[in-house]
Amino acid sequence: YNIVTVIGFLGDIEGNFVYSFNEETALKIVSKMMGMEYNTLDELSLSAIGELGNMTSGSIAMNLEKLGYKIDITPPTVITGRDMKITAEGLIIKLPVSLFITEDVELHIAIRGGK
Amino acid sequence: YNIVTVIGFLGDIEGNFVYSFNEETALKIVSKMMGMEYNTLDELSLSAIGELGNMTSGSIAMNLEKLGYKIDITPPTVITGRDMKITAEGLIIKLPVSLFITEDVELHIAIRGGK
Repeated sequence: YNIVTVIGFLGDIEGNFVYSFNEETALKIVSKMMGMEYNTLDELSLSAIGELGNMTSGSIAMNLEKLGYKIDITPPTVITGRDMKITAEGLIIKLPVSLFITEDVELHIAIRGGK
Repeated sequence: YNIVTVIGFLGDIEGNFVYSFNEETALKIVSKMMGMEYNTLDELSLSAIGELGNMTSGSIAMNLEKLGYKIDITPPTVITGRDMKITAEGLIIKLPVSLFITEDVELHIAIRGGK
């Protein structure tokens, strides 16, 4: 993967949301969010990627609250790089998400028991 | 950097602790923690790296509490890769840490106002 967004959560359960996708998908997402063609991953576009993770995680948090699990989420950290691999502890739920093409986004949710 | 550990925090202030170092430093850290020579970054050693981030962040959290700022920290996410760059929002504090040699660990703390 080329772009990884990490957003932590604390509360009734605790862990991390980890969103992974490649540069092509990232640029499609940013172009869609900005309403104009984006071809480079600069600071502004990476900030938009972080904000997307923030909104998505906020939405997951709201849905979890309806199920009786209250969590708060941390600000996003966006990491770019090559040959990236992620290690997290606890129960790992892997959710392939199809945004533009089939399974172009991968969401891993690492969960540990909360307080 | 080759190894990045992300630990989020929430409370009176919110943000992320991001620890970065190269594979050589990671292997030295793991060897020290395990009490035996480690030459490969397997799942066990990456888990130890995450645990170090957890302990360090827990210690920073305790010191912040003495200063009147209460925070809770998330579980660690450890990411390995090449040519890694980190984007985070808010006030970024960069702390070069010297563990084995001068400034072999870099700690970035990204802070936003909390609730």
